[in-house]
Amino acid sequence: MRFEVLNRAEKCSARTGLLETYHGIVKTPVFMPVGTQATVKTMTSEELEQIGAKIILSNTYHLYLRPGHKLIEEAGGLHKFMNWKGSILTDSGGYQVFSLGELREIKEEGVTFRSHIDGSLHFISPEMSIEIQNSIGADIIMAFDECIPYPATYEYAKNSVERTTRWAERCKKHHKRNDQALFGIVQGGLYRDLREKSAKDLVAMDFEGYAVGGLSVGEPKECMYEVLDYVVPLLPEEKPRYLMGVGSPDSIFEGIQRGIDMFDCVLPTRIARHGTVFTARGKLVVRNATYARDFSPLDPECDCYVCKNYTRAYIRHLLNAGEILGLRLTTYHNLYFLLRLVEKIREAIEGDYFLDLKEEFFSKYGYR
Amino acid sequence: MRFEVLNRAEKCSARTGLLETYHGIVKTPVFMPVGTQATVKTMTSEELEQIGAKIILSNTYHLYLRPGHKLIEEAGGLHKFMNWKGSILTDSGGYQVFSLGELREIKEEGVTFRSHIDGSLHFISPEMSIEIQNSIGADIIMAFDECIPYPATYEYAKNSVERTTRWAERCKKHHKRNDQALFGIVQGGLYRDLREKSAKDLVAMDFEGYAVGGLSVGEPKECMYEVLDYVVPLLPEEKPRYLMGVGSPDSIFEGIQRGIDMFDCVLPTRIARHGTVFTARGKLVVRNATYARDFSPLDPECDCYVCKNYTRAYIRHLLNAGEILGLRLTTYHNLYFLLRLVEKIREAIEGDYFLDLKEEFFSKYGYR
Repeated sequence: MRFEVLNRAEKCSARTGLLETYHGIVKTPVFMPVGTQATVKTMTSEELEQIGAKIILSNTYHLYLRPGHKLIEEAGGLHKFMNWKGSILTDSGGYQVFSLGELREIKEEGVTFRSHIDGSLHFISPEMSIEIQNSIGADIIMAFDECIPYPATYEYAKNSVERTTRWAERCKKHHKRNDQALFGIVQGGLYRDLREKSAKDLVAMDFEGYAVGGLSVGEPKECMYEVLDYVVPLLPEEKPRYLMGVGSPDSIFEGIQRGIDMFDCVLPTRIARHGTVFTARGKLVVRNATYARDFSPLDPECDCYVCKNYTRAYIRHLLNAGEILGLRLTTYHNLYFLLRLVEKIREAIEGDYFLDLKEEFFSKYGYR
Repeated sequence: MRFEVLNRAEKCSARTGLLETYHGIVKTPVFMPVGTQATVKTMTSEELEQIGAKIILSNTYHLYLRPGHKLIEEAGGLHKFMNWKGSILTDSGGYQVFSLGELREIKEEGVTFRSHIDGSLHFISPEMSIEIQNSIGADIIMAFDECIPYPATYEYAKNSVERTTRWAERCKKHHKRNDQALFGIVQGGLYRDLREKSAKDLVAMDFEGYAVGGLSVGEPKECMYEVLDYVVPLLPEEKPRYLMGVGSPDSIFEGIQRGIDMFDCVLPTRIARHGTVFTARGKLVVRNATYARDFSPLDPECDCYVCKNYTRAYIRHLLNAGEILGLRLTTYHNLYFLLRLVEKIREAIEGDYFLDLKEEFFSKYGYR
């Protein structure tokens, strides 16, 4: 993997860059659609290409449980299995083990947990997370970490982040494939000294990129931005920075302003399936009866396939009637909207009008 | 609407033709994918075009209840509402009133029934069926009929078919739009004299096309073919003939052999959503564990988008994990398979090797 910073904003830490993997070039900042179970829900790989996605995220925990990483390896890796020609990042499974797995028990060696699918017992260590991710074959893989809940006591956060750092070291040691870049994950909850120590320790280990994890887990957004304010400056300039699990338009702007290069989030696809879509003038619940006879597009300012061909009334009917096409159309639009927004942000950084774009965007979209 | 017979097979009643509507030219024989609720389940209009669909069917009963025919009229008609540029046929609502509606009461004037969605009380007469279909605006619309259950007594069938004929007359009288062709529907259960009388009475009314209804409702397939054997010869040569609700490969061959031009059926899309796909070598339940590690396409002899890009193992994983993309891929393939099969049949009739194609097809597909 190769990463290069291209442009820097004058008045903030926003920057553009190029991230090159074995599966192509990704312009940063970038939003990565989430393909939890080897599919970005409702979308074909071809459609992801159409909307300009260059890199997607997939979840190690889910793929490990179903269909199994060995099966994916037999298929020739995840790219081939799901027919995706672009880049892929896999998370380490840590987040899901802690949020989805049941009866988990954390030890220095690793984590024992029960599958959320069939209750079967599993054990994942940092080494196993790397092996699973090696089998899956993503271009970027993540160190195995504990994502602590919010709120957490200082004591709990301290023990956890120290272990996460030791786990990161074990991951680095165990990682074999040199066609996969390994990223470290800064943890430490909302405790500044813990976050700073985590960042410094990980930077000393020289990962190929750095993620900020454990945010957007229930804390006020201001707290998240504060963490970025003091963590990002500790990360190396020449390496990509990834804010995990964050993807609302406001958080994307705030993250980029603070020097973040990469984002992922289930938000755009999840709200789409519940009938909520992004528009230039804020979110719109197209499922509502208000739109039953509204024959305008989801977002009149959008030029995506859905907005060019289908109306709110039709999509509302589909959602109301439980038709799959409704979920497809809202998902497609929301991903397009967000990818196009990040593209506009890149252009704004290049042209050095990022803060102006931010103000203009929110004056229409609404602040919240 | 204009219809022209182009080629006739030598050794059977198979024929090819051209059906021209205000929305394009449809080569016959033709299979019409079913878009019950203004969407062929899981498919965009663009994908329907890609697989070569020229005409689809939509259900008057469903559209009347949701979103309502007046809303569709406001949208500019069903073509515009669902963004479908090809032709559309709507059924009369009769079949669904009898199969889905609850507490129905049949009188000479029309049928009172309760909605399967919310239990609300509704009344549809032949005149109202036509008005609803006028609002929806399909290219071909159907007379309001009663589709009797199998088995039915002679007495019941006789009363019903006589009323259906009277209803057909009322439909014809009430039909206003001259950009919509109105078809009559031959009923009469499995009683030859009733079927023959129905056919003769309807032909005397001079409809623009004729359907054979009330078949594939539980009777042995041989009985269906027998009905076609004596009904089709009574229908005018120069008008299209439509076998309603039939769409398995074997019934399509048998129907075409007996002179049928048009088919529709939910079968290919419904079995797809349950994980069963057509292949040149018979049906395959791709959901089965047998295919977990099968990295070949659904049908190695198929050249559709799905078979060129995705494997059985991947699709099996998607279905197993409850992912919408799985339903999309099986649906797309099954419709492509069936449309391509009917295309091959047309070519065979043109080249006068229809019966040879039939034998060749079933020697691989299996007889059943």
